[in-house]
Amino acid sequence: MQKKSRIQFTSVKIEDLMFRTTFDPRTREGDLIVNLSLINSKDYDDVIKIFSMAMNSGLTVSPMIKVLHEGDKFGEMTIGKDEVGFATVCSITIDGVLLKAGVMIKPKFGGLVEIRDGLPVRFTNVLTYQSTTIDPLEVLMSQELTSVMEMLRTGTGKILANLREAPMIARDIIDSTLSDMVDAGITGILEVGEPNTRILDVPVERDHLGIVVIGGTNPMAIVQEHGIPIRTNAMSTLMSFSEMKHIREL
Amino acid sequence: MQKKSRIQFTSVKIEDLMFRTTFDPRTREGDLIVNLSLINSKDYDDVIKIFSMAMNSGLTVSPMIKVLHEGDKFGEMTIGKDEVGFATVCSITIDGVLLKAGVMIKPKFGGLVEIRDGLPVRFTNVLTYQSTTIDPLEVLMSQELTSVMEMLRTGTGKILANLREAPMIARDIIDSTLSDMVDAGITGILEVGEPNTRILDVPVERDHLGIVVIGGTNPMAIVQEHGIPIRTNAMSTLMSFSEMKHIREL
Repeated sequence: MQKKSRIQFTSVKIEDLMFRTTFDPRTREGDLIVNLSLINSKDYDDVIKIFSMAMNSGLTVSPMIKVLHEGDKFGEMTIGKDEVGFATVCSITIDGVLLKAGVMIKPKFGGLVEIRDGLPVRFTNVLTYQSTTIDPLEVLMSQELTSVMEMLRTGTGKILANLREAPMIARDIIDSTLSDMVDAGITGILEVGEPNTRILDVPVERDHLGIVVIGGTNPMAIVQEHGIPIRTNAMSTLMSFSEMKHIREL
Repeated sequence: MQKKSRIQFTSVKIEDLMFRTTFDPRTREGDLIVNLSLINSKDYDDVIKIFSMAMNSGLTVSPMIKVLHEGDKFGEMTIGKDEVGFATVCSITIDGVLLKAGVMIKPKFGGLVEIRDGLPVRFTNVLTYQSTTIDPLEVLMSQELTSVMEMLRTGTGKILANLREAPMIARDIIDSTLSDMVDAGITGILEVGEPNTRILDVPVERDHLGIVVIGGTNPMAIVQEHGIPIRTNAMSTLMSFSEMKHIREL
């Protein structure tokens, strides 16, 4: 008899990954949450060029990357013939690290943020984690609603981002943890709201503040906008920081 | 200054369309909710063949259709050059008609149902309406997770479907209304659950029953599985039943 697996909402998967996050931004050791992307090996040079540009422009969470080649294992899968895989830092890593710092952090949704003249204006589309079995950023990428490349060129466009909420009482520890993260090269904070105020035009829970982080999958969105085939599995698994290197070292 | 429109969750759009539904299954008059699909006019013959097959196999809500040609208006849009549009019945019509019959009906989510040997087994993916700004069935189509054609050929595959809940007290009026709908050619009921039992492996609210209806966008999923470009705007607007004809009359 075939194994019957019940549907799993993204929020449950996120809780699992956050719980298993052990990355310590001060020692730069431990495991962080990564996305996996697969491309045809013939597109390698083009994709690396795009990734470098996107990562150097700060359009992702971190410039750290691990390249996987044919036969390499990644979680439960093996990279296939003529394929190259990239493990990159997932923005939910920030939630995992904040949780381990003792903050009640609640990832809420992934969405598209409209940037106008370089400034984030508002969320135009959102999918909440607790109500979808497919990762919101994967969904939004495949809907071809992003214009990340245009945003890089003109300062105006739509990029992938996500929102979490935290109790306002935790403001100080959030600030210091995010600052430690930046020192370790994990950036991408788009906006930290004031308690009880809307953030990028969406409401936050009373006595909470919203934190918007750039989606780790924006580089993949640019690859896709260029018509290069790429398959992305967001929030794929965990990986030790020590296994990754800066994209400029490739 | 550019108009700023706040995000609108699918559930709000659905409430609006249900409220405006006036279709009466007994007189077969009034407006029902339709999906709009756009194709290249050169693909017309292939698409009509697929639509006919899908609709004759009961893989959609209704065989009624309206074909729109270049210059035709549909809601606020106009069909473009070398384009053909199809308005087809959306499964949320069933919710609109039940609401107008006085039933507290609550559309919950769209998802994929695994069919094995012709029998629906379980939901494998779901997206709830109240937490996404993009229609779940559009999302699932674009993720290329469907295997509707394979299901037609072999009896096993994944098709688009959606779930609504209603209070168990309304059971009789639901049964009679659905029966009137069938007489009027609006079918596609995949399963009506017993109160307080799981339906296709998802739980329903206490003292409620779940009703699973086949997605009106399955024919479009087949078109896409054949590699023919098609753009679908599910739950697009309302249309008078009198404007539509049976697909065999095309």
